[in-house]
Amino acid sequence: MYNPLLLPEVREMLDSGDDAGLIEFCTALHPGVVAEVIEGLSNDDIWNVLSHCDVNSRVQIFTFFDLPKQEDLVTTTDRKRVSALLEEMAPDDRVDLLERLDPKHVDLLLPLIAQAERSDIRKLLSYPENSAGSIMTTEYASLPQEITVEESLRRLRRIAPDRETIYYVYVLDDQRHLHGFVSLRQLILAKPDAIVADIMDHDVISVNVNDDQEDVASMLGRYDLLAIPVVDDQNCLVGIITHDDVIDVIQEEATEDAHRAGAVEPLEDSYLSTPILTITWKRGIWLLFLFTVAQGISVVVDSYKEISEHVEWMGTFIALVIATGGNAGSQSAALVIRTLALGEAGPSDWLRIAAREATMGLMFAAVLSTLGFFPAWGLQGWDAAIIVSATVAIMVMWGSMIGAMLPIVFKKIGMDPALISNPLVAAIVDFTGILVYYEFAQFWLTPVVETLPH
Amino acid sequence: MYNPLLLPEVREMLDSGDDAGLIEFCTALHPGVVAEVIEGLSNDDIWNVLSHCDVNSRVQIFTFFDLPKQEDLVTTTDRKRVSALLEEMAPDDRVDLLERLDPKHVDLLLPLIAQAERSDIRKLLSYPENSAGSIMTTEYASLPQEITVEESLRRLRRIAPDRETIYYVYVLDDQRHLHGFVSLRQLILAKPDAIVADIMDHDVISVNVNDDQEDVASMLGRYDLLAIPVVDDQNCLVGIITHDDVIDVIQEEATEDAHRAGAVEPLEDSYLSTPILTITWKRGIWLLFLFTVAQGISVVVDSYKEISEHVEWMGTFIALVIATGGNAGSQSAALVIRTLALGEAGPSDWLRIAAREATMGLMFAAVLSTLGFFPAWGLQGWDAAIIVSATVAIMVMWGSMIGAMLPIVFKKIGMDPALISNPLVAAIVDFTGILVYYEFAQFWLTPVVETLPH
Repeated sequence: MYNPLLLPEVREMLDSGDDAGLIEFCTALHPGVVAEVIEGLSNDDIWNVLSHCDVNSRVQIFTFFDLPKQEDLVTTTDRKRVSALLEEMAPDDRVDLLERLDPKHVDLLLPLIAQAERSDIRKLLSYPENSAGSIMTTEYASLPQEITVEESLRRLRRIAPDRETIYYVYVLDDQRHLHGFVSLRQLILAKPDAIVADIMDHDVISVNVNDDQEDVASMLGRYDLLAIPVVDDQNCLVGIITHDDVIDVIQEEATEDAHRAGAVEPLEDSYLSTPILTITWKRGIWLLFLFTVAQGISVVVDSYKEISEHVEWMGTFIALVIATGGNAGSQSAALVIRTLALGEAGPSDWLRIAAREATMGLMFAAVLSTLGFFPAWGLQGWDAAIIVSATVAIMVMWGSMIGAMLPIVFKKIGMDPALISNPLVAAIVDFTGILVYYEFAQFWLTPVVETLPH
Repeated sequence: MYNPLLLPEVREMLDSGDDAGLIEFCTALHPGVVAEVIEGLSNDDIWNVLSHCDVNSRVQIFTFFDLPKQEDLVTTTDRKRVSALLEEMAPDDRVDLLERLDPKHVDLLLPLIAQAERSDIRKLLSYPENSAGSIMTTEYASLPQEITVEESLRRLRRIAPDRETIYYVYVLDDQRHLHGFVSLRQLILAKPDAIVADIMDHDVISVNVNDDQEDVASMLGRYDLLAIPVVDDQNCLVGIITHDDVIDVIQEEATEDAHRAGAVEPLEDSYLSTPILTITWKRGIWLLFLFTVAQGISVVVDSYKEISEHVEWMGTFIALVIATGGNAGSQSAALVIRTLALGEAGPSDWLRIAAREATMGLMFAAVLSTLGFFPAWGLQGWDAAIIVSATVAIMVMWGSMIGAMLPIVFKKIGMDPALISNPLVAAIVDFTGILVYYEFAQFWLTPVVETLPH
């Protein structure tokens, strides 16, 4: 990634015991860069490098490893070293790591961690996955209402080293109720003897600790905030979620949706670091389901034996009539799922969306059924041309409609619209398409079939 | 979105000419909230509300409208009002808007704008779309190296009102070469008489003005930065890109990829605000292409007339053999495209990825060809069972491999891997699948066909 040339240098410093060089390496570079460089070392060597920096840098570098790597590192060293690290980690990063570990391992670690951190961990672990509570940090900066700006800056200076950010400061009363918000920029620009309550914003945009992380992310993004405060049902501040965590959430949700669009149960880690059996399983269940639908199509086709026996070209156009509807359906699903994910539209817009899809479906039907008519006519004559172009027309409209409406129905009943994967829509449309094709053929060809010898 | 109940109140204030109420409304709420509330008003009423706040709030509220709305607002009012607004807008937001306007309209506006802003606009407009230059702002905070912390804070106070952020400050020499970086947190914690050059970080993570916006976004996200400096080829600072713009880029790129995955040319605006003919076109070209592939499949099937005439059940399993390979291909494509987009893997990992896909393909082939065997046997006997299960096995492996390798090839030759949409992979696999199916059938059944009467 950053500078692969540094790794050999680090190896050499390790081999020659160049402590001064390693200390310099750990502190001069951005901790994220250090993590990238030393990721290629053995776990023992990584711990060795980390032992050369102060605890603050060590924690920062460690946090830049991805979670599978963090897990690997803490499960292959002694518990005292791990507990010392955990004590200093940011509360949100710490909980992300602990959630991955074997509960038995966590039970061995917790007694080694100081009481204050331990109860913070227990509390954060109690929030449901994907909730605001599960991604927030408890290390926020706060101030009382009635102090001066000068006093505020003095206090911020004191608490700065332990806080995730001091650029956004929340104004609380003794019961930690959230009354206002002031940015460090406002404090710096204000007169030193001004009172915080007089310069703060009273209209604080906040989220509830039980809100979904996706909604939190879209709210922070919508209002261009650096951090968003998290409150409980009594409007007491319990944590904050910062912009960098929101970027992670957005990437995570986009990955989930991209996987779902390809009919894969979302992977939690990266493709390359997920065990192959896990991926096989997460693809397999969907592949199996879609295979079963396809088997159903075979059974349907088989049940129209009578037509197939007399009309040999029916098989010729099966792929054409089903694929086209499925493709139109995939398109609608992709558009509507993304619009719902971005919050640009909701279930209440269903009629507008249906009207748009109907209009587009009609246009596609007109063009594609015309284009489908002539080759079918050329290959197999009039009957084929009429049946193929009628089926294409119907399936394109039906595909567009069902691809757009199913995600809205899912959203409405509280399920993730992204569950409507493109292949799932295609399978549904394929299945109905084959019925339409054969039913229409049966209707159109009945006089033909009846006059043919059995 | 935020509070739909406020809109009637605003209407009433407008009707009764309650200026004090409108001023209060514009300043007490977050500008993003104000924008959401008044979006439902007519353009005239929106301008009326905006005229009640100072120019700073006006610009902020205006910037929170989405771009189609901004365009609509500036093209339906007089030019003087628009130029006054443009002068005060953040450089990056201003250019985003101007890029959407009719060039003739821009030519009329530019002469009304002050010289300094005009040349800033011209410069930013010159950067290619999707480059770092096209999304950066030129309103960054910078300091010389040799001043004290105390003097730095004094200067920051002075420039703060015009800067996008003062939390990250860049340390430059007289030629604007980027020498270091210091955060406001560091400045606040440092001794007042310390020299900036002594406390700054020397290892500044920066991007080039021509870098792709997606790479910029992933870099800011990877290192948890609040802003990233943009330099030219001489390492001179030309702008910064802040976390909120990066969130927009990430959402935009995820939308692009989601649209592509559904075989839609990416829409630039939201689904509901894009004209229906534009969407029809962006879907139509792909639908037409895929339709042509499907037509090709019909021609292929038709060319195997001889088999179809003798073996009536060939049509029965067409959907099954092609869909399964296509689904496996969609899955691989979805996984690999996303992994490439996140930078978790690159073209150099192709062998590892190929090995994983081959392993998974084998497992899927084993399970699905077994599951496909028995129904085919039950419906049509031994020959069908053998041909169907062999084709399914081959196609699942082929689909997995091609779905994974095509995005890597595209990435390698500098094209967007996301161009490999799920339906495109499915179409390619469908086409090859039909060939495999009929060729294998021809091979297996030749003795049968030859003994049958013509």
